[in-house]
Amino acid sequence: MHGSYRPFWLNEHGDLDVLDQRYLPFEKRIRTLKTGSDVVSAIQDMTVRGAGVIGNVAAWGIYLLAREFPNDYERLSSAAMDIRASRPTAVNLMWAVDRMLTRLQSSSNLLADARAEAMAICDEDVARSEAIGTIGCDLIERIMQENTLECINILTHCNAGWLAIIDNGSALAPIYEAQRRGIRVHVWVDETRPRNQGANLTSWELQQSGIDHTIIADNTGGHLMQHKMVDLVITGADRVSRCGDVANKIGTYLKALAAKDNHIPFYVALPLSTIDFQSCHGIDEIEIEMRSDDEIHFIRGIDAQGVVQSIRITPPDARGANYAFDITPARLISALITEAGIIAAHEDAIGALE
Amino acid sequence: MHGSYRPFWLNEHGDLDVLDQRYLPFEKRIRTLKTGSDVVSAIQDMTVRGAGVIGNVAAWGIYLLAREFPNDYERLSSAAMDIRASRPTAVNLMWAVDRMLTRLQSSSNLLADARAEAMAICDEDVARSEAIGTIGCDLIERIMQENTLECINILTHCNAGWLAIIDNGSALAPIYEAQRRGIRVHVWVDETRPRNQGANLTSWELQQSGIDHTIIADNTGGHLMQHKMVDLVITGADRVSRCGDVANKIGTYLKALAAKDNHIPFYVALPLSTIDFQSCHGIDEIEIEMRSDDEIHFIRGIDAQGVVQSIRITPPDARGANYAFDITPARLISALITEAGIIAAHEDAIGALE
Repeated sequence: MHGSYRPFWLNEHGDLDVLDQRYLPFEKRIRTLKTGSDVVSAIQDMTVRGAGVIGNVAAWGIYLLAREFPNDYERLSSAAMDIRASRPTAVNLMWAVDRMLTRLQSSSNLLADARAEAMAICDEDVARSEAIGTIGCDLIERIMQENTLECINILTHCNAGWLAIIDNGSALAPIYEAQRRGIRVHVWVDETRPRNQGANLTSWELQQSGIDHTIIADNTGGHLMQHKMVDLVITGADRVSRCGDVANKIGTYLKALAAKDNHIPFYVALPLSTIDFQSCHGIDEIEIEMRSDDEIHFIRGIDAQGVVQSIRITPPDARGANYAFDITPARLISALITEAGIIAAHEDAIGALE
Repeated sequence: MHGSYRPFWLNEHGDLDVLDQRYLPFEKRIRTLKTGSDVVSAIQDMTVRGAGVIGNVAAWGIYLLAREFPNDYERLSSAAMDIRASRPTAVNLMWAVDRMLTRLQSSSNLLADARAEAMAICDEDVARSEAIGTIGCDLIERIMQENTLECINILTHCNAGWLAIIDNGSALAPIYEAQRRGIRVHVWVDETRPRNQGANLTSWELQQSGIDHTIIADNTGGHLMQHKMVDLVITGADRVSRCGDVANKIGTYLKALAAKDNHIPFYVALPLSTIDFQSCHGIDEIEIEMRSDDEIHFIRGIDAQGVVQSIRITPPDARGANYAFDITPARLISALITEAGIIAAHEDAIGALE
């Protein structure tokens, strides 16, 4: 049964310990972050990832900066810009840094206020995740009733569980809530190349909580949908524009096209902090991160002896291109599952939340 | 520059040597097939793969059976049924076996006639592949002229090169011909999970011939198409129904949806032997092979010492589902590139070829 998990915590020295997500599910490594620049590197190299958790860790990064510069807001805020720019797509990162700085701007006790604000952000994320779970699970029950399903097959892409948004995730929150309510759920887990967050993180999370699931290649969802083996798609989001376009892990767009083509509901679950009210047309206006093509060429796993190995899976000297996200246009999205309710992926509904 | 390659040949003992495609691009292993049942196992375990080459090797499998049963057509044809049933989706396999048996049914010299017929099938495949190259390259030139392109970006999925159809492939034949004509081509190569035929075979083939290409995760094509970085999609096919539905490597359907959504031409290249005139509605009528989920869990590559390793990339005990093909409905296909010309993916055009 799903409990309450968090992939980062303050240790007894006041440093930030994070679960190193690059080694899951094969090794449970903890990495200790002591400075703002440790946080920058942990976000960039994906020791921590997932829109919400990036925001949380960034907030704690500001706390670490407050420890480095306890009496100097100028230096703190200048160093904070490196954290803010550590990855370009997830808007929670910018949102969390900006909120921390707003709080600290006129603070007389940077360290205490940074700690209080980072804790507040985390507490609010937990409450949001719980609300998304409740609202999303009501949706699951409705879809099951309408289609007289005894078990619902939900497809998800990437990882939007507690490793991404504390304590229940966004896309996985309704699934964890369904388990609590005793609803029968089976999850199709896209492996999510090239970083395999589905095969490595979502599958591991669901395994920990005893939720029935099956890993599939990212190529497979369309076939399953054609054969009515998917009742609902739920993904997370890294950024949602004011007009309802969704930036999420590369490949989300392809699944949304297949869902539309097969009349399968396609929902995106997110806390409102993921909304970027400044942008409208996602394809033109949201920056898509390009990462090293080493992520295409090399893959990590365990060998026959149980030792973690990284091997090259492409011909030597081959070139790769590694776009981390894509944009799913609003027209392909049934609706957004947020802590404020089910919201149409449309400017009228989203603009009203600003 | 692309020369003339073949992934199988008769050796000096009259056995069939095949390039073991499971180890490419990391090792060039040759496997020797001496009996019909060797051929069954080589097709099933994907030592040889690709619709055309499966048909060729099956034909040579009948030749090996004729060597086993030189005076007994009944036993030969009974053993041939195991070859015919070794994989379910590629129709060239059934076509080649049936053609061999038809030739041998009234033969007075099984071995000589089997050899002659297998050679004839290969020779015809070479001629078909060359014709597909010429016709497909004319199409490439037309698309480049209409869009005033100096270099054309072609996306392909899986491997439909000379490792799949001798001597130039189907989907890659127009690209090899473009190289001969001095046309600038860049190929986006889908890695093609779970067996990575794109990253391992297509990339290797293109590298051998010096053709510019970039490997991408299967999730990436939609993003590239949204940003006008793809001018044309060409895939191969394992089976095409009389009504134009295409069975091809799992994930082809998702790319076709994205091509349609972005107004990008989506062509399927195939010899006419790939057409199954008996079926119409592909999703209901074409059997999709399910393979072992070990193909999801384990992956092969080379470690830092250059040694080929197989590692597990999913959590221990995780379950996977491995559907090998999907169906791309005719409505998503611009047209078929065949040795008989560019054919509409429609019953009227395809039925006329029967």
